[in-house]
Amino acid sequence: MIEIDDPADPRLDDFRDLSTADRRPDRPGGRGLVIAEGVVVVERLLRSPYPVRAFLGVRRRIEALGPDLPAPAYVTSADVMAEVVGFHLNRGVLAAADRAPRLDPEALAESSRTLAVLEGVGDHENLGSLFRNAAALGVDGVLLAPGCSDPLYRRSVRVSMGHVLRVPFAHVDHWPGGLDLLRDKGFTTVALTPRADAVALADAGLRGRRVAVLLGAEGPGLSDAAIAAADVAVKIPMAEGVDSLNVATAGAVAFYAIV
Amino acid sequence: MIEIDDPADPRLDDFRDLSTADRRPDRPGGRGLVIAEGVVVVERLLRSPYPVRAFLGVRRRIEALGPDLPAPAYVTSADVMAEVVGFHLNRGVLAAADRAPRLDPEALAESSRTLAVLEGVGDHENLGSLFRNAAALGVDGVLLAPGCSDPLYRRSVRVSMGHVLRVPFAHVDHWPGGLDLLRDKGFTTVALTPRADAVALADAGLRGRRVAVLLGAEGPGLSDAAIAAADVAVKIPMAEGVDSLNVATAGAVAFYAIV
Repeated sequence: MIEIDDPADPRLDDFRDLSTADRRPDRPGGRGLVIAEGVVVVERLLRSPYPVRAFLGVRRRIEALGPDLPAPAYVTSADVMAEVVGFHLNRGVLAAADRAPRLDPEALAESSRTLAVLEGVGDHENLGSLFRNAAALGVDGVLLAPGCSDPLYRRSVRVSMGHVLRVPFAHVDHWPGGLDLLRDKGFTTVALTPRADAVALADAGLRGRRVAVLLGAEGPGLSDAAIAAADVAVKIPMAEGVDSLNVATAGAVAFYAIV
Repeated sequence: MIEIDDPADPRLDDFRDLSTADRRPDRPGGRGLVIAEGVVVVERLLRSPYPVRAFLGVRRRIEALGPDLPAPAYVTSADVMAEVVGFHLNRGVLAAADRAPRLDPEALAESSRTLAVLEGVGDHENLGSLFRNAAALGVDGVLLAPGCSDPLYRRSVRVSMGHVLRVPFAHVDHWPGGLDLLRDKGFTTVALTPRADAVALADAGLRGRRVAVLLGAEGPGLSDAAIAAADVAVKIPMAEGVDSLNVATAGAVAFYAIV
């Protein structure tokens, strides 16, 4: 534990101007660090594959993380934290970590019984919520097809309650052709869609099977190509006059019904 | 359709400074109007019991609502709208309506087969999402126990996609004693809780029965008194290391499993 009073101290650079610096990690100056906020999420980071570089927090919150932290823990006041980070944080502790090497989608499929496969989910909150729901309802991993945003953005990490750090994910670049790798491993690929001719979720006989659930972005939904490439199209029956559920909510219902 | 160019025109007062004026309708100056944003939500307002006072929008959006509108439609530019409302609206049309008389909870229970009963849900987004999920998954009405915020706040209306305007709700003031009125009408009252000793949702034999699902705020969950007053405590089985789902998501899973 290292006390720091000067907000300009370069040891705090990992945490500087988070609201702008981490928004576009792909841009020059964006470093793509994984940022965890709050004791619960930082604890999940500590049990994740991402190597922690540093902690920053008020004394009480740093102490709540326990002894033997794997990286320097900078202790300061809430005011200095706010000045470094660029906004007021009410959770009182942050951790910064490096990314880990990308997982191989085949290896992830091999070790999973239930997968979520996301196409075009660009909204960070929906993405974070999907990971939270996947974690809660026993989904083993997430495959990201083209068009998804980065699950390790700070906002997704926070909304997921840190579960993006614990539910393994991999990228599928060849799409929807990449679904073949799932079929080869015995998965039934299930496209979730509000289409009228889809089979009702409860009637699809999916419970207990090795299933990959395909979900598309709120609004457009899954692409026609993705639906055509899946083994079966399934719908959550909806009341008259309601167009759709939020994608993370639809995912939760499907995960519950299948797992 | 009435063209207005002057943002100070008093006919636009229902739409003035929405971000502050409608935040606390219970405060002096707060008028508690129902505000609908965007064509889809305004259309739901038009099929609701809330009497529309006026519309405000750019010509294209007002026209999308169709002819024979039941109140004056003020047409203006996006810039004048932003000046009146106090922020930039990307949905291009608003409607303001009066509230309707509160429904009687007994009458609502009488006419319902499945109900959601919310305790202490103070978060406007969660409240709006719960109404959206209730509407989609065939819940007939919502009872609001103490501690819930106002479903007709603008933010809840928006997040619900306008479904707070269509799913009927009533207030239960006597709590949890008011649950007796549901039991008298043949409802099984079901407390949704992550408690370890609760029955798994799938094993509770609820499908097809007349059920009222009790949901508490994210974080604290249902009060002990509410759980004790319910006929049965039910849980959504969750994976190791995950504490809970978002309350609106948990509601969606329960509504799906029961209705």
